[in-house]
This record gives sequence, structure tokens and C-alpha cells, in this order.
Amino acid sequence: MAFRLTPHERGFYPLFTRAAENIVRAADDLAALVAADPPDRPELAKRVKDAENAGDELTHEILVKLNSTFVTPFDREDIYRLTSSLDDVLDAIEEAADRIVLYRLGALPGGVARQVEVLRRAAAATAEAMPHLASMSQLREYWVHVNALEDEGDAVYRALIAELLSPPDDVPPAGLLTILKTKEVVEVLEEAADAFETVANTVESIVVKES
Amino acid sequence: MAFRLTPHERGFYPLFTRAAENIVRAADDLAALVAADPPDRPELAKRVKDAENAGDELTHEILVKLNSTFVTPFDREDIYRLTSSLDDVLDAIEEAADRIVLYRLGALPGGVARQVEVLRRAAAATAEAMPHLASMSQLREYWVHVNALEDEGDAVYRALIAELLSPPDDVPPAGLLTILKTKEVVEVLEEAADAFETVANTVESIVVKES
Amino acid sequence: MAFRLTPHERGFYPLFTRAAENIVRAADDLAALVAADPPDRPELAKRVKDAENAGDELTHEILVKLNSTFVTPFDREDIYRLTSSLDDVLDAIEEAADRIVLYRLGALPGGVARQVEVLRRAAAATAEAMPHLASMSQLREYWVHVNALEDEGDAVYRALIAELLSPPDDVPPAGLLTILKTKEVVEVLEEAADAFETVANTVESIVVKES
Repeated sequence: MAFRLTPHERGFYPLFTRAAENIVRAADDLAALVAADPPDRPELAKRVKDAENAGDELTHEILVKLNSTFVTPFDREDIYRLTSSLDDVLDAIEEAADRIVLYRLGALPGGVARQVEVLRRAAAATAEAMPHLASMSQLREYWVHVNALEDEGDAVYRALIAELLSPPDDVPPAGLLTILKTKEVVEVLEEAADAFETVANTVESIVVKES
Repeated sequence: MAFRLTPHERGFYPLFTRAAENIVRAADDLAALVAADPPDRPELAKRVKDAENAGDELTHEILVKLNSTFVTPFDREDIYRLTSSLDDVLDAIEEAADRIVLYRLGALPGGVARQVEVLRRAAAATAEAMPHLASMSQLREYWVHVNALEDEGDAVYRALIAELLSPPDDVPPAGLLTILKTKEVVEVLEEAADAFETVANTVESIVVKES
Repeated sequence: MAFRLTPHERGFYPLFTRAAENIVRAADDLAALVAADPPDRPELAKRVKDAENAGDELTHEILVKLNSTFVTPFDREDIYRLTSSLDDVLDAIEEAADRIVLYRLGALPGGVARQVEVLRRAAAATAEAMPHLASMSQLREYWVHVNALEDEGDAVYRALIAELLSPPDDVPPAGLLTILKTKEVVEVLEEAADAFETVANTVESIVVKES
């Protein structure tokens, strides 16, 4: 019978999986919000905010466990970084939902829905990968996939920015303000895509260390 | 007689207290600057800048002590995080003062003074809490208080942004520019409130670890 | 014969030097881009992007080495911070190049070329300093120099922002948009200068620890 001299605390893996599944829900709600009529958006933004609060509680739970666990499955600093990068993803998704409502934006350019679609796919890939942390298997496909999604998101983002920032010469100041508000939403969605890549890079560095 | 086998280096606590008291002074000067006539502001911004320089020296002193101390009162990484989050508060306060002067803003919307008032109360709570790090007592009230202040600051911030970004349809481009400059100041004040919350969360995680 | 009980892995120093030399090349290409006619800029932005990719590979190489090395020449966390701050410099330089092209900016204000000139000098100073990490000598001059350059960059930055944000009252909305795009480039160049200072401060804290 195989056994380990330093039995690892395995309770971290389900928490990472729950954190990622929580992000899946937030990304779904954000997609619904982007497609919704403006009067229906505040309710959906509240759901994204609830997901962010649930994420904060998971972060707290992971950090408490980290502080009370003597032998962790991988470096404490890596657990800290993974937790904090998952938190960054959720913060960016929540900020995007919040800005769309706070800025009272109307219909959004089509590229915004495409950005959110990329986020949903990155969220699904992340939630699928987290349970594999226990066995350190099948994670290479995950980070290659997330890096490809980040490239795709980047192309959508760049096309959107180029389109937004080339208004007709006679755009009125109020139209310019709408452009600037929309640009902020587009930027924060791009930050969310980058944050998914940081999660994947953190997982990669954990796997490299263990191999 | 009680004694400790690993006598803790207690010189860190007074440094954290001094860092927080320095933030109190910077927040007071920022409040004066916001209330002042534009010609009187550069002098007050200089005082805030002086406080930021004093804060940088304290940060340096803490890090030098950290590097020369074998047994620290709590995790080195926690000392690093607490120092760096106190530094972030001061940086945001200084940036707000600086932007108001650099952007040559005139009278500011009333909400800005309310944001700064929240910062002053968070600064006072932080300065009062730091000496309790030595005994790890009475810190729960502090972080509950700072979290409540952050919620209050957030409400002020959101109302301000909604007001700023709904100008009349015939706003001239120069008026739009003033709106955008003011929005930047409002954002950085919100960052300062968030940074106070990060300080409180860092203290919370230190207490959780020690308990 | 002198020998060390814990032979340090010295392979880190050449990697830091290569990372800094890569930044020198990126800063040179950015200077060429700023001076170039707009149609010639995308080719130069691609070169800066290539440098950023090369930098990412160096970062990866350093982190892999860090994870496979038992005894490092200085604290693992310091190696991590130095690597990550060099990466931040390159990211900011790449972002500036990218924005100038993505935003289809025309001729840039003279201050932008002055900002980039400061970056080139900071890059040269950094590349010259990295090989001295092995002996921990002559590093004080380096960080004093980089801090002076950061002050110089800050003065250029502030004059530029004051100039940009004081357009004539009858500026049209399209002119305002150009101002805001240019301001973003100017801000990210200032971030690059700050990031060089963070590299220097990290080196300083390593030297303080070792002395």
C-alpha cells in the first residue's frame, strides 16, 4: 500500500472548483445582462454582485484553511496566487456588469457580446480544469486552450476599440461620452480575459514545480 | 516570570502606528485642499506630497527592519502586505490631491468632500487600531468599522458618478473635459477607500492566523 | 582555497541581464515608432511586440529555473519580484507602442519623445546594473540614477498633461477624443518610468538584505 509521509490537506481542491463554478454563473449572468433591455439589467447586475460576494466568501475560506494547514498540497504562495487570480476574474466580471448599469448604457456594440462569450468559454474551461489539480493531469490542454481564448478575446477587443474610437467627425459631446463609457466596459472585459490567462499561468507554474 | 523563547521584535508596531498617523495628516490636508479656493490648493498639495514622502521613508524603515530581524512578530509576508497596503492608501490620497491641482479644477461637486470625509474617518480608525496589533485585541471592531465605511464611501462614489456622467445633452466639449477630469479624481478617492479596506483585511488575516 | 558550503545557482544573473537588454531594444524601437510617420508605425509596433514575447519567454525561463533550484542566490520572493517588475516595464512599453497604432494617432506632442528618451536612459542603466548583481557592487549609483530619471520623467509627464488638458474652449469633440487618446499613451509611458523605479527599488532591497 502506498502512503505519504506528509499527508496533504486535500480540502483545497473542492474550494478551487467551487470558486471556478461560481465564475461560470457570474459569466452566464453577465451574458444575459448584455443581451437584456436596459430596464432588466439592474436585477441581473445584482445576481453578478451576489456571485462576487459568494466568491469573496470562498476566498476567505481558502485563506483561513491555508492559515490553519501545516502541510499544503502545493506552495502556500501558489495557493495564495491562484486564489487571488480567481478573485481578479470575478472582480472584473462584476465591474463590467456594474458599469453597464451605473453608466446607464443602452444597446451595446455586438463585439461586447462576443467578448463575454469568450469569457464564458474561459470560465467553463477553468471550472473543468480545477478538479484535475489533485492529480496534476490534463492541465496542459487547459492552459493552451485558455491562452488561445485570450488571443481570440484580444482580437475582438482590438477591433471593438478601433471601431469605437473612430466616430464621425461631427459626433456630439454626448455621443462622445457614450463612446467613453462603452470603452471602459470593453476595457474591463479585456481585463477579465487577461485574468483568466493569469489563472492558467499560475496553474502552469504549479504543474511545472510538481513535475 | 513569563518569558518567550523567541523574543519577538516589537519595534514594528510603532512604525505601523506612525504610518497610519501620517495618513491621518494627509487626509486632513486633502480635506482642506478640496474646500480651498483653487489658488490656495498647490500649497496644500505640497503638504500631502510631503506626507507621501514621509510615508515612503517609513515603508523603507519597516522593510530594512524586516530584512534585519530574524524573528518577526508575524509572518514576513504579512508585514510586507500590511506595509504595502498602507502605502497604497497614501499613494491614492496623494494622487487625488495632485490631480485636482494638475487638472486645474475649480469648485468640486459636494460628493467629493463627502468621499474625503469617509477617508478621514477610515484613517482615524486605522491609526487607532495599529497599536492593538501588539496585543491582537479590539481589532474586530476596527475591520467591521472600516468595511462599513467602505460601503458608505461606495454609495457616495456611485451617486457622484451617476450625477457626473449625466450632463445635459448640449454640454460643450470643454464641459465634458471637466467632467472627465473630475471623474478621475472621484475614481482615485474610491481607490483610497478600497485601499483602507485592504489594510483592514490584511489585519484580519493576521489576527485569524494568530488565533 | 575558498569554497561555499551552499553553492549558489548563478545562472540567474545572465537571465536578468538578457531581460534588461531586451528592454533596451524595445525602448529603441518605441523611440523609432514615436518619430516615424504613421504608416511606418505598425511594423515598429510589431518589433516591440516581438520583444515583449521574448521577454515573456525569459520570465518563463527564470521561473522554471527558480522552481528547480534548491539554493538561490537571493530570496525566492526577491527573484520573483525582480522578474515581475522587469516584466511590468516591458508590458508598459509594449502597451504604449500598441496604443499609438491602435488609436491611429498622428504626430505626437514633443513631450512624448522626451518621455521615451528618459525610458531609453533608464533601460540602459538597468542593463548595465544587472551584471553587478553577482558581486552586489556598484548598484547604489544605479538606483540613485534611476530615481533621478524617474523625477525627470515625472516633470516631463506633468508638463505634457497640463498642456494636453488645456485645449482652447472651442475644441471640437473629435479634437477632444485625440487629446484623450494621447493622454492614455502619456499615462502608460509614465507607468513605464515608474516600473523602472520599482526594478531599482527591488534591487536596492536585495542589496540591503545581503549587506
